[in-house]
Amino acid sequence: MENHNTEVTTNIQESITRFLASRKYSKIAVLVDENTEAHCLPKILDALPDHYLITIPSGESNKNLSTCEDIWMALTEAGFDRKGLMINLGGGVIGDMGGFVASTYKRGFEFLNIPTTLLSQVDASVGGKLGVDFHGFKNHIGIFNEPQNVLIYTDFYSTLPKEEVRSGFAEVIKHGLIYDAAYWEQVKTIDPYRHDWTEVVSHSIDIKKKVVTEDPFESGLRKILNFGHTIGHAIESYFLEIPGERLLHGEAIAVGMITEAYLSHKLTGLSKESLEEITDFLIKVYAPKKIDAKLFEEILGLTTQDKKNEGGIVQFSLLKEIGSCTINIPIGIPDMIDSLFYLNERIG
Amino acid sequence: MENHNTEVTTNIQESITRFLASRKYSKIAVLVDENTEAHCLPKILDALPDHYLITIPSGESNKNLSTCEDIWMALTEAGFDRKGLMINLGGGVIGDMGGFVASTYKRGFEFLNIPTTLLSQVDASVGGKLGVDFHGFKNHIGIFNEPQNVLIYTDFYSTLPKEEVRSGFAEVIKHGLIYDAAYWEQVKTIDPYRHDWTEVVSHSIDIKKKVVTEDPFESGLRKILNFGHTIGHAIESYFLEIPGERLLHGEAIAVGMITEAYLSHKLTGLSKESLEEITDFLIKVYAPKKIDAKLFEEILGLTTQDKKNEGGIVQFSLLKEIGSCTINIPIGIPDMIDSLFYLNERIG
Repeated sequence: MENHNTEVTTNIQESITRFLASRKYSKIAVLVDENTEAHCLPKILDALPDHYLITIPSGESNKNLSTCEDIWMALTEAGFDRKGLMINLGGGVIGDMGGFVASTYKRGFEFLNIPTTLLSQVDASVGGKLGVDFHGFKNHIGIFNEPQNVLIYTDFYSTLPKEEVRSGFAEVIKHGLIYDAAYWEQVKTIDPYRHDWTEVVSHSIDIKKKVVTEDPFESGLRKILNFGHTIGHAIESYFLEIPGERLLHGEAIAVGMITEAYLSHKLTGLSKESLEEITDFLIKVYAPKKIDAKLFEEILGLTTQDKKNEGGIVQFSLLKEIGSCTINIPIGIPDMIDSLFYLNERIG
Repeated sequence: MENHNTEVTTNIQESITRFLASRKYSKIAVLVDENTEAHCLPKILDALPDHYLITIPSGESNKNLSTCEDIWMALTEAGFDRKGLMINLGGGVIGDMGGFVASTYKRGFEFLNIPTTLLSQVDASVGGKLGVDFHGFKNHIGIFNEPQNVLIYTDFYSTLPKEEVRSGFAEVIKHGLIYDAAYWEQVKTIDPYRHDWTEVVSHSIDIKKKVVTEDPFESGLRKILNFGHTIGHAIESYFLEIPGERLLHGEAIAVGMITEAYLSHKLTGLSKESLEEITDFLIKVYAPKKIDAKLFEEILGLTTQDKKNEGGIVQFSLLKEIGSCTINIPIGIPDMIDSLFYLNERIG
């Protein structure tokens, strides 16, 4: 996997201009959803030469092959060849799907990612995981491939609901917990509603890059990034379909980190004090709701369909202590149920 | 791109057994169409452990995203994870599509190609071009990726119509013309209806590997493999939709090589004697039909949609002499029309 450049910038237009000046593309497509078209595109428009704007409906529910077909068709109709460029302007859905479409159109042309949310900047922008959902399975169809470049501009957050920023903050918290105890001490002091993110985003990207560079195809170390995501994804998937109960990704991952910190305490040596410290902070920031115990089994059944599992056993990434994570811990449904009871009890 | 192994074998069951013994897979899928299920699968069945058989309808018209979705769904329902193996048993459609599906299911698992036709053995088996057609555009959606291994067994040809073997022979002829004048002398003596192919297939695979290894992503040298394919593909696409007029791939490429040899004589120095020698041999083997001059413009218009073209100009790969090919020769429709008139005249 080729290494790409990530540039954290305070002048996005200048960064785009410099990127385009250094290359020659036959055509440029800009992929947006209706939100980034309205709120983010105006912030970069002066830096864009003639381009084809491709607008797709926003939201995870449109991250599927049908939307890919619409984008492939738009590229075909505009006569794109393999010397084109796609600029993905948006959150994780735009980045994952736009990258997949660009990487598979005529066997691939270059793409530039301009992630517009905290979540997509610290997470999806690094690691080359591209793809779409398939019949309810998250990121089920996809490939590993890197964008030509990633431009990071935290001023886009001003266009986002505050909950979206708080959602992205969950990945920042995770980076401290799995890799960097000193960073966790700093993270604990952040108020996600009023923070200047540039430095934090840079540091989180650095952590993710270090992990991914050592293990691009997720055969070992990279799995530490799954901390909080096994139960977290199951919860996210379950409530996705229930009107009014839907959680943002980071809200689900916060709950996942509480329950998986509980499992870490029970099984991999995380101290009681650290467990409480993690739980207290996540409950303070995310104020999660209790989960009805009648739903536990159905929710947790979804963990066995996670693509990182091999041979039907659910493998967790758990903390040994704050700043250190271990992988491939097999866990059964009863222990997972205990962790959800712990969550409910602590929510009080 | 990782380099894979190609093994030309006279005992396919032993080769499969040896391959599987050296690896550990969680599950094995075997992808076939109704033809290879009936005629080729029995030849390898004794060497296969428990597996999931996935049967798709045969033919290029089913090489599309809809069939991919069926295969992805079959893998999902069978609970495949990233430690699975897909065995693609069939011609180019099975190899291209099965490889694409395996490379994109949960971001990719390994696949073993067992091509069953001369064409897929000497062409699709090497080079990592995977994908499917999209709204009539050939191989429009896809990626570059290599199988874990390719097993070549020429005894499968006994299950094929003779025209299929003759069709694959066109790629063998091309390898001589673009890369190896001595090979061309040998190729000229082959009667495609009664030949022992093992040695020829090995040599053709070696030529293709040499070319592809030097230029995996088709930025330069690899384009010599396109000789005969620019006009050839246009003719193949045009007649695909016309009942009773459909050409096999090699039959269309044979016509493409005659017309592009004519352009080579006109523009890149191929001698008159060589042009006639090439034309005579291809007409003798393939007995092509004349093409109605009223259709020339519509057929040739299809050349501008080939994915190898950049910026709307049609780039040809043409012969300088037998055994040597040059690339990126821009050609307009009038010259292409001349070449079709030459074809018709020589068919007489």
